[in-house]
Amino acid sequence: MTGVIVLNGGSSSGKTSVARCLQTLLPGPWLVLGVDTLIDALPAAGAGVDFADDGGVSVDAGFRSVEAAWNTGIAAMVRAGARVVIDDVFLGGAASQRRLRTAFDGLDVLWVGVRCDAAVAAEREAARGDRVTGMAATQADLVHRGVTYDLEVDTTHTETMECAKAIAARV
Amino acid sequence: MTGVIVLNGGSSSGKTSVARCLQTLLPGPWLVLGVDTLIDALPAAGAGVDFADDGGVSVDAGFRSVEAAWNTGIAAMVRAGARVVIDDVFLGGAASQRRLRTAFDGLDVLWVGVRCDAAVAAEREAARGDRVTGMAATQADLVHRGVTYDLEVDTTHTETMECAKAIAARV
Amino acid sequence: MTGVIVLNGGSSSGKTSVARCLQTLLPGPWLVLGVDTLIDALPAAGAGVDFADDGGVSVDAGFRSVEAAWNTGIAAMVRAGARVVIDDVFLGGAASQRRLRTAFDGLDVLWVGVRCDAAVAAEREAARGDRVTGMAATQADLVHRGVTYDLEVDTTHTETMECAKAIAARV
Amino acid sequence: MTGVIVLNGGSSSGKTSVARCLQTLLPGPWLVLGVDTLIDALPAAGAGVDFADDGGVSVDAGFRSVEAAWNTGIAAMVRAGARVVIDDVFLGGAASQRRLRTAFDGLDVLWVGVRCDAAVAAEREAARGDRVTGMAATQADLVHRGVTYDLEVDTTHTETMECAKAIAARV
Repeated sequence: MTGVIVLNGGSSSGKTSVARCLQTLLPGPWLVLGVDTLIDALPAAGAGVDFADDGGVSVDAGFRSVEAAWNTGIAAMVRAGARVVIDDVFLGGAASQRRLRTAFDGLDVLWVGVRCDAAVAAEREAARGDRVTGMAATQADLVHRGVTYDLEVDTTHTETMECAKAIAARV
Repeated sequence: MTGVIVLNGGSSSGKTSVARCLQTLLPGPWLVLGVDTLIDALPAAGAGVDFADDGGVSVDAGFRSVEAAWNTGIAAMVRAGARVVIDDVFLGGAASQRRLRTAFDGLDVLWVGVRCDAAVAAEREAARGDRVTGMAATQADLVHRGVTYDLEVDTTHTETMECAKAIAARV
Repeated sequence: MTGVIVLNGGSSSGKTSVARCLQTLLPGPWLVLGVDTLIDALPAAGAGVDFADDGGVSVDAGFRSVEAAWNTGIAAMVRAGARVVIDDVFLGGAASQRRLRTAFDGLDVLWVGVRCDAAVAAEREAARGDRVTGMAATQADLVHRGVTYDLEVDTTHTETMECAKAIAARV
Repeated sequence: MTGVIVLNGGSSSGKTSVARCLQTLLPGPWLVLGVDTLIDALPAAGAGVDFADDGGVSVDAGFRSVEAAWNTGIAAMVRAGARVVIDDVFLGGAASQRRLRTAFDGLDVLWVGVRCDAAVAAEREAARGDRVTGMAATQADLVHRGVTYDLEVDTTHTETMECAKAIAARV
C-alpha cells in the first residue's frame, strides 16, 4: 500500500495545490510535508538556504545535513502508520531523487512529476506576487533532469483537481 | 547533549515567539516544530481537530493516531542528528506529557513550561485578531495540570527574549 | 480612461488570482483592494461580519456603514489619480452593485463578472484548505443575481491569465 | 472627536500589535490601515519599493504618487465617518509627517510615536523570522527625526496592551 507520494516540480508548477487536492480525494488523513515546511521550521537566518535575486536557490552542507535527518524522520512517520505527500523541488535533479530513495528505502513510494510550461509558471509566479521572481522559469526543466517517475502530470492546461485525480487513481 | 526542547503552554502564551528567539540564541540550526505544523500538514476537513466557538479544542482518535506517528518521526529526526524545539499545547495535561515521554524515550529532553496570566493571554489573543477567541483563557492553566518541568518561564511580565535566554542557559 | 475595475465573483471563483494577473498585465501600478482588505482592517471581534458553519456570510448595519465610508475613500483615491482593481463578493447581488455605483459615481468603471462552476469552486475551496467550507457553493450563483456587467469571464475551464488578458483588453 | 490615530515607529517596534490592541479597547470599529496594507495592494514587481539586503528601504517617485492618492482616500474615509488607526513608518522623518499633515488637513489627528530600543527591536525582528533583517536597527531612531507627537509610548519594557491603554485614554 502506497505510504508516500512524492510530487516533484518547479516553483509555481502547482505542486502544492495538487497536494491539497489529493488530501480531499484520498481516504484517511494524508499529511502534506515539503521543503517549504522544512524551511519554515528552520531559523530565518543561518538556515543554509540562499535565494538569489535572479531566482536561483542554493543550499549549503549544513542544510543538506538537516534535510537528511528530516527525511529520515518522515520515513519513520510512515513506518509508524502515517501517509505522507511530499511536496518537493529537486534542485539537484537525479541526485535529489537518489537521496530521497535512500531515505525512503523499503517504503512503497509513488513518484510523480508535476510539470508546467516555464512561461505559464512564470506568469503564475508574477500573479502570486512572490517577492522573489525568476524561480519558476529557472526551475521548470532543471528539477526533472534525470528523474524517473511512475506518473507525470502537467498543470499547464489541465485543472489541478484533474491532475490530482490521475494521481489518486494510482494510489 | 539536549536534542529536544519541549515548550508547553496555552494559546497566546508566547510559546512560538520564545521558540523563534531560541533559534537565534542557540548555536547551529534548531527546527521549530509544533502542533500547528502538524495541523497545517493535515487536510483542512477531516483532520480530527474541532475548534468550538467558545475556544474549546477537541481531537478524535484519528488525530491521536496521526500525532503518535508524527512524534515517532520527530524522535527519529533527532536520533539522525537534528535538534528540535517542540511548540506544543498539552490539552491533556499530564497525559499529553506521558505520550511525548514515550515517543521521545532515550532522547535528552528539556521540558519547559511557558506560563502566562490568563487575562493577559486573552488580551494578546484579542489583539492578534485570531478569529477563534477564548482559547487563551481556556488553556492558560489547563495545559499545565500535572505536568513536570525542568524549567518554567512566565511571559506575563518578562520579555520573550529574556525567557528564551533563561531556557538557552539550560541547554 | 478606466480608473476602476470591479471584479465580482463568489468565494474560490478565482477573483483574487485574476486581480493579481491584471496587475502584471496593465501598465502602471494598479492597487488591488477588496472586501478581504476591509475585513482584515477591521477588528477581529465586533466587525459585524458573521461566517456561519455552513458557509453563509451575513453582515450587520455597522459593517454596511463602515463599508460605505471605505468605498467613498476608494473613490477619492481614484479621483486623486490611483487606479484600483476591486475584488468583491456581491452578497446582495444587484443591491450590492447599486451601492457601489453610488460610491463610484462619475468614475469610469469596468464591471466584470468572474464566474466559476459551483462544483469546481467547491473543489478549489477544499484544496485551498480554508477552514470555513461551503462558501464557494453558496455564493457561486447568488452573487451574480441581477448584476449587469461589461464583461464576464469564467475560470472553470479558462486559465486565470487568459481571463485577465480578456479583461485587460477592455481597459 | 479624534478620527485618526497615527502610529509611527520603526520596523519591529510593535506598532501593529499596539494598533490591534487599540481596536479591542476603543468603542466602535476602528480600521487599521498602514503602509503594509498599501504595499500588499500594490503589484509585487514595479511597486516602487526596494528592500536592500542591509535592511534599507527606498521608494521612488511612482510610489510617492500612489501613496499620496492613498492618503487622500483615507482622509475621505474618515470624513465619511470611518475611524482609522494608521500604522506607518516615517522613513523621511519630519518630511513624512508633513505629507501626512497635508493629506489629513482638517481632521482631528492624534500623533503617536511608538519607540523601541534598537537592540530589542532587532532581537524581535530576528525572532519573528522576517527574511529581510536589519530594518529594525536601521529604522529605530531614523523614523522619529524631527517628528512631533501628542504622545509617545515605548514598547521596550512596557507591555503592548499598556501602551495601547495610554493611547486610548487620549482619544
